Amino acid sequence: MKIVIAPDSFKGSLSAVEASISIKKGIKKALPDAETVLLPIADGGEGTMETLVVATGGSKKRVAVSGPLGETVEAEYGVLGDEETCVIEMASASGLALIPHEQLNPRLATTYGTGELIKQALDDGFQSFILAIGGSATNDGGAGMLQALGMKLLDENGKEISFGGAELARINSVDVSGFDKRIKGRKFLIASDVQNPLIGSDGASSVFGPQKGATIEDVKMLDQCLAHWADEVEKVTGIHLHDRPGAGAAGGLGGAFQAFFPAEMRRGIDIVIEYTKLQQALIGADLVITGEGQVDFQTASGKTPMGVAQAAKSQGIPSIILAGSIGPGIETLYQFGVVSVNSIINQPMMLSEAMERAGELLEHCSEQVIRSFFYPALTESQNPHLEN
Amino acid sequence: MKIVIAPDSFKGSLSAVEASISIKKGIKKALPDAETVLLPIADGGEGTMETLVVATGGSKKRVAVSGPLGETVEAEYGVLGDEETCVIEMASASGLALIPHEQLNPRLATTYGTGELIKQALDDGFQSFILAIGGSATNDGGAGMLQALGMKLLDENGKEISFGGAELARINSVDVSGFDKRIKGRKFLIASDVQNPLIGSDGASSVFGPQKGATIEDVKMLDQCLAHWADEVEKVTGIHLHDRPGAGAAGGLGGAFQAFFPAEMRRGIDIVIEYTKLQQALIGADLVITGEGQVDFQTASGKTPMGVAQAAKSQGIPSIILAGSIGPGIETLYQFGVVSVNSIINQPMMLSEAMERAGELLEHCSEQVIRSFFYPALTESQNPHLEN
Repeated sequence: MKIVIAPDSFKGSLSAVEASISIKKGIKKALPDAETVLLPIADGGEGTMETLVVATGGSKKRVAVSGPLGETVEAEYGVLGDEETCVIEMASASGLALIPHEQLNPRLATTYGTGELIKQALDDGFQSFILAIGGSATNDGGAGMLQALGMKLLDENGKEISFGGAELARINSVDVSGFDKRIKGRKFLIASDVQNPLIGSDGASSVFGPQKGATIEDVKMLDQCLAHWADEVEKVTGIHLHDRPGAGAAGGLGGAFQAFFPAEMRRGIDIVIEYTKLQQALIGADLVITGEGQVDFQTASGKTPMGVAQAAKSQGIPSIILAGSIGPGIETLYQFGVVSVNSIINQPMMLSEAMERAGELLEHCSEQVIRSFFYPALTESQNPHLEN
Repeated sequence: MKIVIAPDSFKGSLSAVEASISIKKGIKKALPDAETVLLPIADGGEGTMETLVVATGGSKKRVAVSGPLGETVEAEYGVLGDEETCVIEMASASGLALIPHEQLNPRLATTYGTGELIKQALDDGFQSFILAIGGSATNDGGAGMLQALGMKLLDENGKEISFGGAELARINSVDVSGFDKRIKGRKFLIASDVQNPLIGSDGASSVFGPQKGATIEDVKMLDQCLAHWADEVEKVTGIHLHDRPGAGAAGGLGGAFQAFFPAEMRRGIDIVIEYTKLQQALIGADLVITGEGQVDFQTASGKTPMGVAQAAKSQGIPSIILAGSIGPGIETLYQFGVVSVNSIINQPMMLSEAMERAGELLEHCSEQVIRSFFYPALTESQNPHLEN
């Protein structure tokens, strides 16, 4: 019996690695002789770098960069096992989680640190870049990143503008002459599930601004700033970012990659599945167990359990999902070969208790689900029916 | 595919009948063509009468009797489909649930109403009696029941004592001459899992008195009263109830049956399984689903899910348990052929929410568990792997 264990993290309680270990323990209680393959997964969001490093036997490098509000932060980027590919989570340098909630301010927040991370990786000689751009605190159109890589964004006096989404309005000209020449010879894979355009009611400011601390007035102003930025970008590149799908990802950082990088944007989970070699791990498996903290109708739009199930289905392998919390709409997952969706919660309890006991609950649930699924294969001592 | 659905109630939220309907709905979502047999079960406790009446296509009869504290209550007894057997829950006439918690008083509470119910059923001509004696508010040694059936419990002045456990101390003699003559020609099956003796530290007063409102002083006094009662019973019957197993059931009501009735005491679940003809329903089944509000290490000592699983195992049929709340020690159930124990809770929530949503949660859990267990049999549209 071969079982592949490929969960995402259970946010706030278990990393994807911890989750896969708990699931394995439960499986072994039910089927001590089962062969298990642990392949913790992320969907391009938080944990993506860690996942790819672990799966490929790579390493991590720490770099001091400018945080979203200009303070120094210790960011890190990952090096895959091939030693040619690096993986950068923009959130490590310019993420929401780096700022106390009450200080969130997309008018000021910059992607400069993300640019510094890329520059360091270029200096370190990497040829291939994977960029996970979820979780940004910024709405600067990627301007900060471009500045860190040598682009000059000048005001009407020919002086460089400062950081943040509100500064974009002051751009009078873009000088690309100093932009890092190495970039165009490299490969950039952008992990993003966001299809939003740069501006307008579906744009970066309107849709994602509020969760980054933008007020209603901020949203309007920031949208105008990005519109001006798109005009300036179009002047130098001929690329019309305004309504381009994906340009609105990560506060417009997605657009900056589209305009100035040899970049390909793909769904995060697809990139992770490719680089973790999930398909190879699946060969000959009887079942895949995946999971995530929350599973609901949104899961089918590119979250880890859906991506893993889809990959398994392509090899005719069924998958079972374990979740902390099950919301409405899970029936949409059946089409991806999902057998069942099971909550780890085993009695009425508060969220805090569930988070504290997540490892134990996941192990228990995994044991019970495996017992149900592989019932005929339970060992004789555990399955007295076989004696009859 | 034949699936037998035999849950107990989910106390406080779903009756056994309601639970079985929710489970059926979930099964039908997973396997629309499955054959389902609904057989709600009780373990001799609350719901036993209802279960036996439903399972045998019987009826119920309402009778006005004296409640535990002498007030009139509308009790009912059940008539099985054979029209020869009646089933009486002592709790219907003399139960804890009939009295507001703060008025509980085992010094005063009487089993008189239970005796009245039996008398009415004798008058109605029944030959065979099933008595479920759980949930009593009383500690009167069954004295009240005996009085209702014509026995005279006399004080030193030759006057009848009054009701309640404290009155037993005043008994000077027992006059059985007026005790209902019909009783010895009838069959009495007492459903009780309690093996406690009448008196002492494991006796009725010490073990069950406190939950019926007895203080520490009350327990001591009530135990002495039952000891005196046992002496008096021994004088007239030669039967030594003091340390007799089961005599301590239902505040000593169990002892009264042992001393004065042609009674057989059996585990409640076994009686229910026999009279509901569960074994016949199980013939040819592929799976049994059972369940209860709470499942833990105590379940293995005669609760419904264990009894149902054991019955299924005797026919080589696996069983799956669904529970509101799973406690420690469920591994002890595997020996009874239990495949898995699954909680219906699908996300962190308070008990009150779980109770309110129990039907929906049970349906959902049942669907998911059936999908896992019968995975290869899912319909093609739901199981795309079959196409590969």
